[in-house]
Amino acid sequence: MYVIIVYDIGIERLNKVRIFLKQYLNWVQNSVLEGELTKAEYMLVLSRLEELIDPDEDSVFCYHVRDQKFLGFDELGTRKAEIDTII
Amino acid sequence: MYVIIVYDIGIERLNKVRIFLKQYLNWVQNSVLEGELTKAEYMLVLSRLEELIDPDEDSVFCYHVRDQKFLGFDELGTRKAEIDTII
Repeated sequence: MYVIIVYDIGIERLNKVRIFLKQYLNWVQNSVLEGELTKAEYMLVLSRLEELIDPDEDSVFCYHVRDQKFLGFDELGTRKAEIDTII
Repeated sequence: MYVIIVYDIGIERLNKVRIFLKQYLNWVQNSVLEGELTKAEYMLVLSRLEELIDPDEDSVFCYHVRDQKFLGFDELGTRKAEIDTII
């Protein structure tokens, strides 16, 4: 399955979430990661994210399509190089 | 078509872009809007966005599926009420 994760997460938890997600997905925009996952990997990502976020403060949207060919995509502007705030 | 727009836009242009997009889509998360558009509306949105953003500074991703039923979705955490910074 092809997965897009978009998050709005408190700065205190941001690095942990990012480090975790980048093991499974590609960072494509500030707060957006994408990639191909198996169903098992996707379930694991959801489950681990639930532990990492504060459910009262953070918001994570996980979109997925069965195959990337079902997903149209247009991009405007410039992709920025990631600024890693990881110490 | 069902459209998801995710943006990373300089604060100077944020309100204009938001006001414009909210005429066509629903705000669902900080920097994410979603909704059903016709192909013509989608083309209009893309074209107007190109005028509103700074192509060297901003990044806008427009994902779309033919029908919302092709799009899986899981949500973690809490949706925040929108804080409108529009004067």
